[in-house]
Amino acid sequence: MERTLVKEALTAPYALQEIRVMGWVRTRRDAKTFSFLEVNDGTSLENIQVIVDAGIPGYERIGAMGTGASVDVEGELLASQGKQRWEIRARSVRLVGRVAEDYPLQKKRHSPEFLRTLPHLRPRTNLYGALFRTRSRVAAAVHRFFLERNFVWVHTPIITASDCEGAGEMFRVTTLNPMATNADYSQDFFGKPTSLTVSGQLEGEAFACALSRIYTFGPTFRAENSNTTRHAAEFWMIEPEVAFCDLAGDMQLAEDFLKYVVSDMLSDTSGDLDFFCRFVDPGLRERLESVRDRAFVRCSYTEAVELMQHSNHPFEYKPHWGMDLQTEHERFLTETHFHAPVIVHDYPREIKPFYMRTNEDGRTVTAMDVLVPGVGELMGGSQREEREEVLVQNIRRFGMNAEGYAHYVDLRRFGSVPHAGFGVGFERLVMFVTGVSNIRDVLPYPRTPGNCES
Amino acid sequence: MERTLVKEALTAPYALQEIRVMGWVRTRRDAKTFSFLEVNDGTSLENIQVIVDAGIPGYERIGAMGTGASVDVEGELLASQGKQRWEIRARSVRLVGRVAEDYPLQKKRHSPEFLRTLPHLRPRTNLYGALFRTRSRVAAAVHRFFLERNFVWVHTPIITASDCEGAGEMFRVTTLNPMATNADYSQDFFGKPTSLTVSGQLEGEAFACALSRIYTFGPTFRAENSNTTRHAAEFWMIEPEVAFCDLAGDMQLAEDFLKYVVSDMLSDTSGDLDFFCRFVDPGLRERLESVRDRAFVRCSYTEAVELMQHSNHPFEYKPHWGMDLQTEHERFLTETHFHAPVIVHDYPREIKPFYMRTNEDGRTVTAMDVLVPGVGELMGGSQREEREEVLVQNIRRFGMNAEGYAHYVDLRRFGSVPHAGFGVGFERLVMFVTGVSNIRDVLPYPRTPGNCES
Repeated sequence: MERTLVKEALTAPYALQEIRVMGWVRTRRDAKTFSFLEVNDGTSLENIQVIVDAGIPGYERIGAMGTGASVDVEGELLASQGKQRWEIRARSVRLVGRVAEDYPLQKKRHSPEFLRTLPHLRPRTNLYGALFRTRSRVAAAVHRFFLERNFVWVHTPIITASDCEGAGEMFRVTTLNPMATNADYSQDFFGKPTSLTVSGQLEGEAFACALSRIYTFGPTFRAENSNTTRHAAEFWMIEPEVAFCDLAGDMQLAEDFLKYVVSDMLSDTSGDLDFFCRFVDPGLRERLESVRDRAFVRCSYTEAVELMQHSNHPFEYKPHWGMDLQTEHERFLTETHFHAPVIVHDYPREIKPFYMRTNEDGRTVTAMDVLVPGVGELMGGSQREEREEVLVQNIRRFGMNAEGYAHYVDLRRFGSVPHAGFGVGFERLVMFVTGVSNIRDVLPYPRTPGNCES
Repeated sequence: MERTLVKEALTAPYALQEIRVMGWVRTRRDAKTFSFLEVNDGTSLENIQVIVDAGIPGYERIGAMGTGASVDVEGELLASQGKQRWEIRARSVRLVGRVAEDYPLQKKRHSPEFLRTLPHLRPRTNLYGALFRTRSRVAAAVHRFFLERNFVWVHTPIITASDCEGAGEMFRVTTLNPMATNADYSQDFFGKPTSLTVSGQLEGEAFACALSRIYTFGPTFRAENSNTTRHAAEFWMIEPEVAFCDLAGDMQLAEDFLKYVVSDMLSDTSGDLDFFCRFVDPGLRERLESVRDRAFVRCSYTEAVELMQHSNHPFEYKPHWGMDLQTEHERFLTETHFHAPVIVHDYPREIKPFYMRTNEDGRTVTAMDVLVPGVGELMGGSQREEREEVLVQNIRRFGMNAEGYAHYVDLRRFGSVPHAGFGVGFERLVMFVTGVSNIRDVLPYPRTPGNCES
């Protein structure tokens, strides 16, 4: 008989004479003449309850069907007396795989710290199963959003020979033996020093200046020695880039994008969102609904600084024009002042990267950051400098190696167009829609300083 | 006025009084009282023709609207006398970005070798525009196939501390300075040697043994010094993994997957497939149709060797039991003997990796390879060894470090289940459905020995 997924069994439209499910036992309760098995196969948070009458084929091994054992059940799908709609009355049950006595996932609740030491087993728990299903769900929504709008998914390179100035420390990629003395880059695989990418933006711009609308969605890397709950050395990033688009269009795209992903999450009926609301963050649903329903405020950096200066809020770091926004400022704006998501735009040129477009005032650039309640900055982007002269000046002003940017400047020499884009850390997005506060809990195998377990 | 994409304009259901398109000039032809612009914005292979009458606003700069310049056109969408259904009669045209005189993409055809030196500009050509749109299309079909079947997309790690024995040379990832003497791994970012992943399979198995059906789709790396048309140092791979699945189920999944992707490609009406059939590979459509329509033959390795031995085919490398199949053997089987895609299964244990399941005969393992006409092997997979004792023996037999595989063995200790999966090189798949024969032409920024340009 064909296997039915537990998810499908739990949502069956009617009772079934014949059904077969396979999965792992979450718990077993034994009565005199029968046992209850709670079986989960990872396709849903909920288990299906299986009633195993004494004496049916396979019952003789019921003692081995403890938490973690794998089983194959055939029987009948019936209306349940319990909290679920359906349960299975088994006609036969087969022990597929025993569970060794040292199985670390016993019935009791385990701390995330402990479960992080078991990346290969934690997806079998309620929390991590829900998190990794949701991660996939959010990724699918991201692709759908862009593909519906005629964006092309571009796989920008992971190994790069460019510096991407200012984007932080990079990992070196090499086939040289780091233990050997007198290493010589001309002997390295690519004949020169190479690193892991910190962003696909510059290559993304080249593709946007050919295909009009593109996005990247791939891994990026930071070799920063920061052990916080929001940083990982390896994470996935989404970077759309649009030709013939200005800052206003970019802000609208970012708002549409976030509303789309959040709406998709709110439409979840699998039980995963309910679980996060119940056990992770009681304010989650309300926060998501407010992002879905409220218009995002636009507020220039200069206005933002002024209104903070005129507020009586006791900032630790006193607001002044020219500073970078701190998390306390971001959260004040979105949570206390506007009570809505806020897009802050047109930042001082001195605190932003070389590729952003200089405004008429000469002192601000077309940058924007999307701030959301509970988090602060979630996404950031800009309209790019499309004027060759200004870009070349910027490259000089930042003391960068102009030669390494010849291709990038070329885009401004051959049919240059206004273009804009933004970046979102995918894990930050997953954290935002699940309420989870540690990035290590939304990455299948998190990489942080000193930690590279498989 | 809102921008209309050229793709949308070309497929408009009716004429439009008002339309605005933006894009890059492919060619311009001047007559006495008007000019023709062929405008492309990368959303489709076809250009839209724009008639620019002398004297309309912006016409004074028509001389600068040469090949490669960017323009912004407003006008009327009208039935065309030419080969396309629609053309635009401009009411105004604006030169957005001039094109410098040394623009390398002139009207004449350029060789792929030359265009590979211009990764930032080649997506503006017909061939590469079509290839990168198709790459995105195929990627979307891959995701759709798996998501429709309740698979979870898992992002297995890129940086890894495991060896993945036998999968080939690996790139080292480090923050140590390779020029320094006396490097010490305890000082490295992760406190130990780390590399770029060659496969997400082992981590994928852990997730399949929790969520039942998962797939990976991400970059993988080989530091092999092979300069062929089919190898790149960085490429994307798709690796589904299914719990409670045997070799037969795995073969069926592979067949369904390939038929799905090929059917999706055959349903393309954008003109990209027509372009490949016309200019890249005249036999393409027929080959794709045969993969879509013909049942995939199942043939055991042993049968395959016997039938080749009994054929009169002049093999360079004479078939014998125990050998690895060479491309000539693969192509003989699929093209000459069966005239259909073939799945060869149950290979000699000695030529396959440690993790494949040993058959009852003790000398073969549950491996399978999918062979297709024109290419040979396109995908490969196996049912995994789920028996702890046998797996541990294999790890010893291969002389591998058992400690590094403790988590992998754990999956066999705690509710082990039969499970299976396969791997597909994503670029090979794109090459197969486009007819393109060099992997450098389907990667946005190809990385090969000595080549890491951005």
